Amino acid sequence: MKRIFSVLVENRSGVLSKISGLFARRCYNIDSLVVGETDDKAVSCMTIVSSGDERIMQQIEKQLNKKLDVIKVRTFEEPECISKELLMMRVKYNSTNRKDIIENCAILGAQIVDMSTSAFLIQVCDAPEKVDLFIRMMQPFGISEVARTGTLALPKCVD
Amino acid sequence: MKRIFSVLVENRSGVLSKISGLFARRCYNIDSLVVGETDDKAVSCMTIVSSGDERIMQQIEKQLNKKLDVIKVRTFEEPECISKELLMMRVKYNSTNRKDIIENCAILGAQIVDMSTSAFLIQVCDAPEKVDLFIRMMQPFGISEVARTGTLALPKCVD
Repeated sequence: MKRIFSVLVENRSGVLSKISGLFARRCYNIDSLVVGETDDKAVSCMTIVSSGDERIMQQIEKQLNKKLDVIKVRTFEEPECISKELLMMRVKYNSTNRKDIIENCAILGAQIVDMSTSAFLIQVCDAPEKVDLFIRMMQPFGISEVARTGTLALPKCVD
Repeated sequence: MKRIFSVLVENRSGVLSKISGLFARRCYNIDSLVVGETDDKAVSCMTIVSSGDERIMQQIEKQLNKKLDVIKVRTFEEPECISKELLMMRVKYNSTNRKDIIENCAILGAQIVDMSTSAFLIQVCDAPEKVDLFIRMMQPFGISEVARTGTLALPKCVD
């Protein structure tokens, strides 16, 4: 069972260390963690994806709520939210595979954001499973380098 | 002075806690931190943006290199790399401002990824200063909710 914790925290030094320490000490699993600013400079938003049984998920929520730096905790599961990840990848190209790489990018909605005479720097911003698919499709060409954010998620719009 | 640390680490529980603890203990500033998978399941990539003088930047690099879970540390500065961030934002709309919101999204390359009869869920994936600009342009409409990753960066392609 995967659950997404969207946690508003005070934007202070040491907060990330406290929250990640809580997960480490209690051996709660972190599948992915993203921390970034909000529109309020005093507040950061952490998006943590964790997996485990219902009991563990409830414990995590309780423990997060206990922390002084935590302003608000919301939890949701995959079908109720839109999840996105950002990936950057460097792939070497040659005259033989260049066209295939460019076509794969077009099919999977990836953008080439920089290039040299032998390499492309590619950006993908999509659902986690689409990002996985893009990596699989590029592996045969030889990936030189990759960097990826964790999952960012917000609940779907409801009326 | 802003520096970007791209750190390959063992994908083990507790690593994030150790690295963020190092920054917290020594009062090194973290402007942004992103941790995600690479194409190798055993290895995660952390992208940390920090600011301070040259001496502090060198200390951070040394301290990171001392950690057992750290495989490789690379540092680079803004002009040598392509930096991107991902933002998700919910904005309420009405018949008066709907067209302006849609036009702003088109101008700034943002995508509307979900909607209801009263709100848009918008995604932007761009350079950090473009993401800041998007937030500023949307503030007059009233932002209900925002989630943002930190900076993800890879060095530019060179021949």
